Amino acid sequence: MKPFMDKDFLLTNVTAKLLYHNYAEKMPIVDYHCHINPQEIAQDRKFENITQVWLGGDHYKWRAIRSNGIDEKYITGDASGHDKFIKWAQTLTKAIGNPLYHWTHLELRKYFDYDGVLSEKTAEEVWNLCNEKLKDDSMTVRGIIEQSNVKLICTTDDPVDSLIYHEQIKADPTCKVKVLPAFRPDRAVAIEKPDFADYIKTLGEVSGVEINSIDSLYKALSNRLDFFGEHGCKASDHGVDYVPFVLADENKLDAILKKALNGENVSQTERDAYRTAVLLFLGRQYAKRGWVMQIHYGVLRNNNTKMFEKIGADTGFDTMGTYNCAENIALFLNELDKSDELPKMVLYSINPSDNAVLGSMIGCFQNSDAVGKLQHGSAWWFNDTKSGMEEQIKNLANLSLLGNFIGMLTDSRSFTSYPRHDYFRRILCNVIGQWVENGEYPGDMDTLGKIVEDICYNNTVKYFGFEI
Amino acid sequence: MKPFMDKDFLLTNVTAKLLYHNYAEKMPIVDYHCHINPQEIAQDRKFENITQVWLGGDHYKWRAIRSNGIDEKYITGDASGHDKFIKWAQTLTKAIGNPLYHWTHLELRKYFDYDGVLSEKTAEEVWNLCNEKLKDDSMTVRGIIEQSNVKLICTTDDPVDSLIYHEQIKADPTCKVKVLPAFRPDRAVAIEKPDFADYIKTLGEVSGVEINSIDSLYKALSNRLDFFGEHGCKASDHGVDYVPFVLADENKLDAILKKALNGENVSQTERDAYRTAVLLFLGRQYAKRGWVMQIHYGVLRNNNTKMFEKIGADTGFDTMGTYNCAENIALFLNELDKSDELPKMVLYSINPSDNAVLGSMIGCFQNSDAVGKLQHGSAWWFNDTKSGMEEQIKNLANLSLLGNFIGMLTDSRSFTSYPRHDYFRRILCNVIGQWVENGEYPGDMDTLGKIVEDICYNNTVKYFGFEI
Amino acid sequence: MKPFMDKDFLLTNVTAKLLYHNYAEKMPIVDYHCHINPQEIAQDRKFENITQVWLGGDHYKWRAIRSNGIDEKYITGDASGHDKFIKWAQTLTKAIGNPLYHWTHLELRKYFDYDGVLSEKTAEEVWNLCNEKLKDDSMTVRGIIEQSNVKLICTTDDPVDSLIYHEQIKADPTCKVKVLPAFRPDRAVAIEKPDFADYIKTLGEVSGVEINSIDSLYKALSNRLDFFGEHGCKASDHGVDYVPFVLADENKLDAILKKALNGENVSQTERDAYRTAVLLFLGRQYAKRGWVMQIHYGVLRNNNTKMFEKIGADTGFDTMGTYNCAENIALFLNELDKSDELPKMVLYSINPSDNAVLGSMIGCFQNSDAVGKLQHGSAWWFNDTKSGMEEQIKNLANLSLLGNFIGMLTDSRSFTSYPRHDYFRRILCNVIGQWVENGEYPGDMDTLGKIVEDICYNNTVKYFGFEI
Repeated sequence: MKPFMDKDFLLTNVTAKLLYHNYAEKMPIVDYHCHINPQEIAQDRKFENITQVWLGGDHYKWRAIRSNGIDEKYITGDASGHDKFIKWAQTLTKAIGNPLYHWTHLELRKYFDYDGVLSEKTAEEVWNLCNEKLKDDSMTVRGIIEQSNVKLICTTDDPVDSLIYHEQIKADPTCKVKVLPAFRPDRAVAIEKPDFADYIKTLGEVSGVEINSIDSLYKALSNRLDFFGEHGCKASDHGVDYVPFVLADENKLDAILKKALNGENVSQTERDAYRTAVLLFLGRQYAKRGWVMQIHYGVLRNNNTKMFEKIGADTGFDTMGTYNCAENIALFLNELDKSDELPKMVLYSINPSDNAVLGSMIGCFQNSDAVGKLQHGSAWWFNDTKSGMEEQIKNLANLSLLGNFIGMLTDSRSFTSYPRHDYFRRILCNVIGQWVENGEYPGDMDTLGKIVEDICYNNTVKYFGFEI
Repeated sequence: MKPFMDKDFLLTNVTAKLLYHNYAEKMPIVDYHCHINPQEIAQDRKFENITQVWLGGDHYKWRAIRSNGIDEKYITGDASGHDKFIKWAQTLTKAIGNPLYHWTHLELRKYFDYDGVLSEKTAEEVWNLCNEKLKDDSMTVRGIIEQSNVKLICTTDDPVDSLIYHEQIKADPTCKVKVLPAFRPDRAVAIEKPDFADYIKTLGEVSGVEINSIDSLYKALSNRLDFFGEHGCKASDHGVDYVPFVLADENKLDAILKKALNGENVSQTERDAYRTAVLLFLGRQYAKRGWVMQIHYGVLRNNNTKMFEKIGADTGFDTMGTYNCAENIALFLNELDKSDELPKMVLYSINPSDNAVLGSMIGCFQNSDAVGKLQHGSAWWFNDTKSGMEEQIKNLANLSLLGNFIGMLTDSRSFTSYPRHDYFRRILCNVIGQWVENGEYPGDMDTLGKIVEDICYNNTVKYFGFEI
Repeated sequence: MKPFMDKDFLLTNVTAKLLYHNYAEKMPIVDYHCHINPQEIAQDRKFENITQVWLGGDHYKWRAIRSNGIDEKYITGDASGHDKFIKWAQTLTKAIGNPLYHWTHLELRKYFDYDGVLSEKTAEEVWNLCNEKLKDDSMTVRGIIEQSNVKLICTTDDPVDSLIYHEQIKADPTCKVKVLPAFRPDRAVAIEKPDFADYIKTLGEVSGVEINSIDSLYKALSNRLDFFGEHGCKASDHGVDYVPFVLADENKLDAILKKALNGENVSQTERDAYRTAVLLFLGRQYAKRGWVMQIHYGVLRNNNTKMFEKIGADTGFDTMGTYNCAENIALFLNELDKSDELPKMVLYSINPSDNAVLGSMIGCFQNSDAVGKLQHGSAWWFNDTKSGMEEQIKNLANLSLLGNFIGMLTDSRSFTSYPRHDYFRRILCNVIGQWVENGEYPGDMDTLGKIVEDICYNNTVKYFGFEI
């Protein structure tokens, strides 16, 4: 029996151990997609207790606690940090086989030097130990980032954002990590949302363009793209339920946009036409600028009306959708490719049934613009598990070139979630190690080490064109 | 090489063996969902031969024999029990990797003390041995149940059922197993079936309500719910092709129901509206009564018209459907949840591509009403295989709390199928054992043993509120 | 660590090794579905260099090289054979975990006696070695086939084909392999294609029937079926995006056909009605003749317009589609079965999410017409990987009788791809060996050896009715 989560955690063979300890573990981290708040980096936030760090905004953990029949008071309610932590500790024991179990203990080991097991029994001990440790100067936001060997972080920012915290960070010589914005124009795409007209008004103001037509909308977005570009942006991100594909001419698009700006309802076809147009416009812009377009699709959001009304979005009430995704994605990519305006693109599906579809899809649009120009993104959200990552890695290896994979990102809202890179790297090394031990790839450590280092770090830097 | 199906069958590591033999194996069985006939328990049926037990109604085996190119005469036809058994034995050898191979030998070992291998060569020997054993007084229906350590069985009963056999069983002090009815109102939901009007007439008679409107239908169903409640019912079950979600007002529903009662065709939208309404009504009733709502969805039934006309339903001609299930399920659950009328619910999909969808879906509606209020049901029917169960368990562990899982049921029509619980328990212990041996969960046997016992028995008893 | 791809490649346990070396490896090959050119067998083509053999038409490899960011010049362009080979060698190193890595080395070992690793470093050495070897008289097309122990090949032929090369091969006493045509009437089915009317004109000429109605089309196809039958044809093949099911009467079908012959567009419903009718007609013909109907469905083809216009179809720009396949397939099979006109049929899906659907679907239509009358086809195209084949095998074992499986085919355009049978056989033996070593099936080598030999060869010969 292997000891519980020791230094060889998830490494089940000799090759895997060598690859992890001699190559993967040493590589810096580029976290090219996450949801942390740049303000907290700019201000180098300190935390009062472990509940703030772990349970402040982590809807993965909230879901788990709810599944344990615990009252919402102890989740997003007004219970004390201490009591919330105890409920989490009680819940954790039941999370056998869940990545939360592993992330929690990886974080306890890495940041809090705790080698034990968090459970109801040890909850008080861990609560005290973590809170004591959090008083340490090394445990500010930046301290955690530096300890984690993170060289670059891309946050996720709305086009109307002032990027003021990014400017502060850049101007601050004491901040050792590079922090870049990523362009996330979901609110400009979501024409069906009640706050769309208000949002477009703000976008117009911020960009200095009066938006009353599709063309002026493009102009406004283009201004903001320029602004983000000046701040070093290299990546965009889009969260959509499904990739739409309905083509419409400018007159039609103007009419749809006007309807929405007047607060009228748009039909599903109109919505799709508008979304298609804006996504195509942005895709072309990204291509022109050399940015990477990320598309995260397939989530059905805010399914629990009662809780949405109480505590809003991103609180743990989303699920996988079931969409027949292939045809629209192929048409969308082709539309951009036809005129040589397809940007580098990373496609992420929330439904693991789409893994093989994406693996085969990207092969239709690869070319010499970039190595691995189209990427099947790392196992995302509900798939960000040991088996989910193994499947994504094996699927990618089966259908594309694993050696060109840009690897892991945290997608996280927490500053202690960099061990998810560690988790990924262990799994990657183990999968590769198993192949090698099984005679499926030569045991040449130079070649293997390079593949691992590339996937952990080098491919990402080259693909995005980051300067580090 | 491990011996063929010995006491450590499917247990590939030390932890798994300890967990199985010291914990899982000792727990009683609650079979909360099956299709056995309560009359046969009431009358404590004896069997004349093994073909009656094994091949009398088991469409899993029938399918396998048909796949072997055997004439229907030897399957559901007029061949002798002996000759049917021989054909089954011939077929079995080709069923390498199939759960039927394992179930058959688990049953031979458990009930017939036969440690050999059933094949064409041994068929006569096994035929004689089993038939001899079946003469034994311990091999009545109740004898088999008692040997199997089954404490409670829920049968599946139509709302119009008199539950007379349940009454007989309850009144019989010699019957040691508790047998409860479960409410299965599929015929009241299936408005498009040719016998719907007749069925509703019967339902009206049995419930003492003249059904001529949606409201009177609800009244009738409510009467039957009361009646089932008086007989200890704690669970309902619904088999639907897909979960519908079309809302309609009472006038509309009255009109649809009247059409159907007049023998007119209803459109698919009307059908969905009616079904949605009745399922929502029943869901609310279950919530009020504290019952568990089970939904089995996704099967495409009776695909072979020729055979359906010859031998009817449930004879081995069903298959997995392919439905985009997520959106409707989310809307359906939310509709009940909005008014705090969502009952405890177990969702089972026939298509394993939906595993991850259900795993993430249930997380959207968990709350403090119950521990694990929403459950992703145990691997069902075509998925009731070693790999199917492993996938369901790992999927559930990834996306929810495995520790709160209510575990296995037989879903069977046969009295010798309790070893399917054994099969499940071995697989469960092996999966958990692998995690522990791999350092992914602490090797603390008290904690692990409790998790296993809970999943095998305790969780079920608490979840349904059974009194045993 | 196992050595890289030695004689026990992919065989991880003793039983697997015994099964492979004592049974599987010795069986001849029947390649019942491939895309090789019969002209090259008739003329016993010689190759000038390894690039002609490997990179001449293999769009699997082309996709991989494109994914490596290599210019199209080195893929389908005018670069020299040598330079193309070097780019392939560079790419291969990144294809860790990809079946191309294994196929390449299996072929180097089998045909070129090269035990090393192809990479950028060894590329020149391998280029020279292979080209030298290709000069050998044993390395003609027929030489390669004979070395590979191939007894029978079915090519894939259009109904209008003269089958002249099949006649030449049959008349040539020096050709030791049996080569049969297979009937692939995709162009007669694809009513929406721009060249449909021209194609139907040719079909009319070749068959001596003036085609101006659905009935005359059937007559023409029937003539060609007779012609193919005279040439020993036993199998047909259909490539469709999805299995359609729209029934229409003769007048309707005549009108649709006339529209298409006049160059008018047909609607999607008309297209589906026409396709359904022709596929049903052909299915009935195959049943009458005892042929096997193969249906390959689910591919979304020619997604990259720019490349399609440059280099045409089958060049590496296809992907998996996402269709809800179950209902139509069930209706289609049932329509044929109702009148006892369902032929033997092999269903292949490109989307692995359909594996379980097909495994359960075939069980609905099995009968005593043939052993394993309905087959879930071997892992196809994007699934033709180690994990893809393991999944198909395990899925089939779970849901049907693995012992009746007709096993592997190459589906290839290359004469050196017979090691894909070897790859499959190793995987098959390993899966079975694992079950046996794990106590899940008895370790009786006679029974196991027969199962393996049957799946590798005997089942196929019996199922198709080949005379060898």
